[in-house]
Amino acid sequence: MISVVILGAGNVAHHLYKAFVSSEHVNVKQWYNRNISAITSFKDEVKITDDVSQLVEADIYIIAVSDDGIAELSQKLPFEDRFIVHTSGSVSAYDLDMKNRRGVFYPLQTFSKSANIDFSQVPVCIETLMRKDHALLKSLAESITQITKRINSDQRAALHLAAVFVNNFTNQLYRVAHEITESQGAEFDLLKPLILETALKIQDLSPFKAQTGPAKRNDKKTIKRHLKLLDNEHHKDLYKLLTASIKNTHDQYKL
Amino acid sequence: MISVVILGAGNVAHHLYKAFVSSEHVNVKQWYNRNISAITSFKDEVKITDDVSQLVEADIYIIAVSDDGIAELSQKLPFEDRFIVHTSGSVSAYDLDMKNRRGVFYPLQTFSKSANIDFSQVPVCIETLMRKDHALLKSLAESITQITKRINSDQRAALHLAAVFVNNFTNQLYRVAHEITESQGAEFDLLKPLILETALKIQDLSPFKAQTGPAKRNDKKTIKRHLKLLDNEHHKDLYKLLTASIKNTHDQYKL
Repeated sequence: MISVVILGAGNVAHHLYKAFVSSEHVNVKQWYNRNISAITSFKDEVKITDDVSQLVEADIYIIAVSDDGIAELSQKLPFEDRFIVHTSGSVSAYDLDMKNRRGVFYPLQTFSKSANIDFSQVPVCIETLMRKDHALLKSLAESITQITKRINSDQRAALHLAAVFVNNFTNQLYRVAHEITESQGAEFDLLKPLILETALKIQDLSPFKAQTGPAKRNDKKTIKRHLKLLDNEHHKDLYKLLTASIKNTHDQYKL
Repeated sequence: MISVVILGAGNVAHHLYKAFVSSEHVNVKQWYNRNISAITSFKDEVKITDDVSQLVEADIYIIAVSDDGIAELSQKLPFEDRFIVHTSGSVSAYDLDMKNRRGVFYPLQTFSKSANIDFSQVPVCIETLMRKDHALLKSLAESITQITKRINSDQRAALHLAAVFVNNFTNQLYRVAHEITESQGAEFDLLKPLILETALKIQDLSPFKAQTGPAKRNDKKTIKRHLKLLDNEHHKDLYKLLTASIKNTHDQYKL
């Protein structure tokens, strides 16, 4: 049984709490948040506190607060040589105060308050500064997910950056599609099955092999017609750059 | 019972054939292709031909060939005043030869040879030049899918263009993510659950509401770090333009 204390009350903290509570191998000993009201609804299930001096002893302390708050909170912890991890994709493990043993427990997924996530399918990327802490952190990850991966800081930074492309940027393309359809009184909803199929296709096929469409075919007639159709300069720029990107990717393999 | 003849043997033609054959309300009377070898494997199930002069009579002729071949094939048809539709998102119904009644039967999905598609969830957008043909085309669509929509040519053009954004361009972002992860020896596969969740989220939430991340938060520190991490100028350009696009979308609602 691994004992943990969760610090923070954002989406990641909430989803981790739920996943840990559902596991037989984890005991959530305490939940800390600076603002206690965010977790008072859990007070009958778990010990809660808003006072770092009241933190109980545990195998792992999980700091799941916003990136900017991680270093400061780690400095406030009133103990030494315990094992502390944060959950951020973009903060260094070295940003944690060095008085404790340090690591990272990075769940690579987008979490929202409302959406239920099957945590067993969420990849958890782990990193520890001391080798001896690895086994424990790995056990913790394996207690809630089938996908765990030991990575170093450079790999985590690359994954976090790549996640911005496949999540935030992709979502912005959905937004642009929304604007394009609405502008002609067409229904964005009609695109939803295609959006889902595009993501499903990539589960078994490389993005390179999955590509289709006018840019890949170098279908100049369609590209020209599309550019004429776009009256928003901003959408035009995106169309041009992404078309060039596809051509660039696929041309270099044609030689 | 609606009788149809399919013309063409690409992915759309194959998926339509399968869907029609599975429907009780449709009788595929014949399958035509210029190159007969592409459909000879079906010769025991359906009448096949590579000769337009041998085309049998049917309620609807469905031209599912590449965009460039639609007009020419429609001109070659040796009959008049029958009902002809094509399946393209970007070709006008007026490109079909006017000797016949004309329409469009546009399934809004990405089709590949290998992937099995549940056609009942594929939106079929229909358009007829003569009002009297609408009911028949609608019945045909309803015989294979739960999602049918009457649209005009402008709406179809907008949907086809928007489809390029959510399918081809999104897939290219997956490709860039692949390049970024590989360059650091990180596994692209770790991003697959995130890719799927991003598409699932949009099924119930508008892209505007679903947006998260550094660009939306205007988290300059993270944006700067990401740009520094990108050594490919091309990836940098995409990052900048898409970040500006997100800011632009979300700033205008902050005022």
